[in-house]
Amino acid sequence: MTDWFAKHAALIERAAQANAERGAWSPFVESPSAKHHPPGAHAAGRAAFEALLGRPFEIDVPGPVGRVGGEVSPLTGEALGVDYARGDAAAIMDAARRAGAAWADVAPAQRVGLCAELLTRWAGDVFANAYATMHTTGQGFLTAFAGSGANSLDRGLEALAMAHVAMAQVPATADFRRAFGRGPEAHLQKRYRLRPVGVAVVFACGTYPAWNAYPAILANLACGNPVVVKPHPATILPVAMAVRTGRELLREAGFDANLLTLAVDTREDPVGEALLRHPAAAIVDFTGGQAFGAHLERAFAHLQVYTETAGCNAVVLESADDLDAVLRAVAHGLCLFSAQMCTSPQNLWVPAEGVRTPEGVVPFEQVVARLVAAVDAWVAEPAVAAGLCGALHDPRTQDAIRALADGAYPVLRPSAPYAHPDFPNARTATPLILQLEADDRALAQREHFGPMAFVIRAPDRDAALAGATADARDHGAIASYAYTTDDAFLDRTLDAFAAAGASVGVNLVRHLPINFTAAFSDFHVTGLNPAGTACLTDLAFVARRFRVVQSKVEGA
Amino acid sequence: MTDWFAKHAALIERAAQANAERGAWSPFVESPSAKHHPPGAHAAGRAAFEALLGRPFEIDVPGPVGRVGGEVSPLTGEALGVDYARGDAAAIMDAARRAGAAWADVAPAQRVGLCAELLTRWAGDVFANAYATMHTTGQGFLTAFAGSGANSLDRGLEALAMAHVAMAQVPATADFRRAFGRGPEAHLQKRYRLRPVGVAVVFACGTYPAWNAYPAILANLACGNPVVVKPHPATILPVAMAVRTGRELLREAGFDANLLTLAVDTREDPVGEALLRHPAAAIVDFTGGQAFGAHLERAFAHLQVYTETAGCNAVVLESADDLDAVLRAVAHGLCLFSAQMCTSPQNLWVPAEGVRTPEGVVPFEQVVARLVAAVDAWVAEPAVAAGLCGALHDPRTQDAIRALADGAYPVLRPSAPYAHPDFPNARTATPLILQLEADDRALAQREHFGPMAFVIRAPDRDAALAGATADARDHGAIASYAYTTDDAFLDRTLDAFAAAGASVGVNLVRHLPINFTAAFSDFHVTGLNPAGTACLTDLAFVARRFRVVQSKVEGA
Repeated sequence: MTDWFAKHAALIERAAQANAERGAWSPFVESPSAKHHPPGAHAAGRAAFEALLGRPFEIDVPGPVGRVGGEVSPLTGEALGVDYARGDAAAIMDAARRAGAAWADVAPAQRVGLCAELLTRWAGDVFANAYATMHTTGQGFLTAFAGSGANSLDRGLEALAMAHVAMAQVPATADFRRAFGRGPEAHLQKRYRLRPVGVAVVFACGTYPAWNAYPAILANLACGNPVVVKPHPATILPVAMAVRTGRELLREAGFDANLLTLAVDTREDPVGEALLRHPAAAIVDFTGGQAFGAHLERAFAHLQVYTETAGCNAVVLESADDLDAVLRAVAHGLCLFSAQMCTSPQNLWVPAEGVRTPEGVVPFEQVVARLVAAVDAWVAEPAVAAGLCGALHDPRTQDAIRALADGAYPVLRPSAPYAHPDFPNARTATPLILQLEADDRALAQREHFGPMAFVIRAPDRDAALAGATADARDHGAIASYAYTTDDAFLDRTLDAFAAAGASVGVNLVRHLPINFTAAFSDFHVTGLNPAGTACLTDLAFVARRFRVVQSKVEGA
Repeated sequence: MTDWFAKHAALIERAAQANAERGAWSPFVESPSAKHHPPGAHAAGRAAFEALLGRPFEIDVPGPVGRVGGEVSPLTGEALGVDYARGDAAAIMDAARRAGAAWADVAPAQRVGLCAELLTRWAGDVFANAYATMHTTGQGFLTAFAGSGANSLDRGLEALAMAHVAMAQVPATADFRRAFGRGPEAHLQKRYRLRPVGVAVVFACGTYPAWNAYPAILANLACGNPVVVKPHPATILPVAMAVRTGRELLREAGFDANLLTLAVDTREDPVGEALLRHPAAAIVDFTGGQAFGAHLERAFAHLQVYTETAGCNAVVLESADDLDAVLRAVAHGLCLFSAQMCTSPQNLWVPAEGVRTPEGVVPFEQVVARLVAAVDAWVAEPAVAAGLCGALHDPRTQDAIRALADGAYPVLRPSAPYAHPDFPNARTATPLILQLEADDRALAQREHFGPMAFVIRAPDRDAALAGATADARDHGAIASYAYTTDDAFLDRTLDAFAAAGASVGVNLVRHLPINFTAAFSDFHVTGLNPAGTACLTDLAFVARRFRVVQSKVEGA
């Protein structure tokens, strides 16, 4: 039998080191450039994706009860023509539970090794998966290649290494010798077995299907818990591909493929809660909207509930050495994948007194004008706009943009479609920007998913900071941003966001997308505000997914 | 300012090593023998205890609303005459929250160091605390000295070291440098702050007040969470002493003493749920009965709920090299502190076919007779019985014994008081043993707290194992026991208990009390069966009590 841990030990140990050091590291390739890949890899991946279209997707599920599908590419506007076997919720959970019995007895390190093998196989399928991601989420190719590729593989490996480290802190055995009172020494042989807690249900998200799903899948499998993956009904294909790869590997390795099953559903007939009501359910990993996430946190609080939902991510704009560079960086964040990322900025807090720069204070109105110009610049060139913004995942986002623009608040920048050079039918929209006042900002105290942002005028910089941090604490924030050249204000900013339980990036301008989040380095979601409970990846993300059962036997 | 971590670094590091190795280790003194303590320590401790009697206990509480007390010694039958200020629940929680603000900003290592200092001060007060424990719980002196002394201090240090190790896995800062695409290198300075989650309410248990409370108090304080300790209304004094010592230390170290507060109540007017309904409540650590524990798990599932409740601990008696030695060891477990320990055995599974020994199969009836004789032998001598059994904590336990004896099932051994040589009014009882059949054992599927046990006759050894493990899985078990000389049956036993999520001790006979549980070595409570969710001490016990908030700042 393959020693899966030995095969991947160097990778896992290196990832554990990266988790501990938290600098920049990745073993995966973020760029699709031909020079980083075997000859023909890109074309082969694209062909593999195209071969999937217009036919049933081959994956077996427990208790089949029909087929569902209906995915439509946000880029082409055309149906993918793929359908999937839908399994009965109870049959899926029963099968997962049955599969888990033998898996629980596999040595933790071997489970970790097998998960690492799965990661390498996912990595081998990254071109095909990037196309599947594009044509379900609406991401541009580069976004999809990095997003469903290296960035998500990194997060998966990060969680896997964290699970390994947590499990490795429990020795397999111990020798216990001590005397009680004046008696001779007692001698016990102790053994510690790590046991899973039950079946995990992983809800993958519609716009970034792999980023949270890979860590959850791998952390669960590594700790011995069978996994049922429930994709978003509009973004099934990339998830189904990953699950099928996993099932093939499990089968090949001699395990029950139902350790990793796919549970598809439709918006009209969702399966998620039926899965969670099954007595075998022990864990739910959810990425998606705040309303349903909060419902799961309440209704299934007796399970382990790991959520990443949404917040109202703020930018506090206090002062800048190079204001236009700052506005360009922020505008990039407003455009990137049409702000359909959990780290996209939404609420831009600008003091009414203006923003201080080396050239003097730039008045509020001018800051706004230059911000709008910066956004305009990013979307002026269709090819640039296409690569940057991609398309809108959900047709309802267009309605949301329209409703917001037609509302009571001044429009600083209207949204409009841009002409996608490759996909003339792509569902596109450039950022809508409204203006709000700090004391009339209820609209900004929730996430508007898509290219919708608010400039919030605050009486002064301290009011801006206070408002941004209060909203993070009370309504959630996954990423927050601040720009300041004032060291004292910087310190106050760091302390205020820390006190609000929200992470913050300061003066992010040069040479990186502001909302890039690095596995092994950035902790993603704090668990201290309403944006979710699941931190990628802290010890708390993994430490409860297994428990210790011990035996002690007297004698030699 | 004192560098508390430096002062105790060697102790904490050694404890962390012990946690990782899990052999026998303790830095505390388990024996009250004069040779291990400074001259006069015992007498001084006893005098300190006696000086507390018959007067108000001096401890300040937020929002005082009167005084409660009413503790009665189970040994003397006399009221202690001590009363305590009762605080208003909201005032206590508000004060704890306020105190937490500055504490959250203290470096984690300094909080850990201060907690270690608190442990050493508790250790310095161990004689007085042992007397307070005796005269509230009913424990004998030796039991109380070890139980509220070294054994609980060990568990506290174990949890503290685990919290330290978990927090130390997050570096304080990191330097992030990487290039995106073809751009120059981006450079971010990252900082990771560990933040508390909120106020923790620790429910201490009536019979073993320090064992679970010390780990919970220290894990919470170390991770930055203010702690409100709610003692059992019949066992306030030893807890109040420990809290007062902690408040004195906090004040002396320059912190708000309301980081550690005492919330006393009465059985008629309990305060626990009011504390937990306060919006500052984030964590509950509960040790006590299964009904209230399960209620907390359900009603407060939105908090972090750590419970240790109760199970129906089994002994599977399959075969023995020295049957009388085995029965003596089991009988000792039935007697020790009148089976008022979470690890006390209750359900003795004996195959109808008898127990195999080198001298042949001992028939069921003879096994029972020899077990009864073994119990009789332990309690024959009043001085031995007194040291071993102590007294009944709760007067209602006598009613429970009576009701059980008068029930429908055959009494194998009646319970009777024994004459305590030192305390003629002590509330004493020797073990009651009933006989049940495996297929009519509902009575045994819950904990009977106190000296009540069942011999359950099983059709054969496999039925005994199946019944014991099914009950552990379905009704809970904190400790389970098995005796077998058959290697194949031993393997089946270990696997069956592991599959049931229950820890098991096998062939525990010689030189130790069978239900002794060693900090740093034994994981206590698995979290996989209904006996509780809080394992002393795994990573899961500490990893969620803090979260990470990060900042990243561009530039050098």
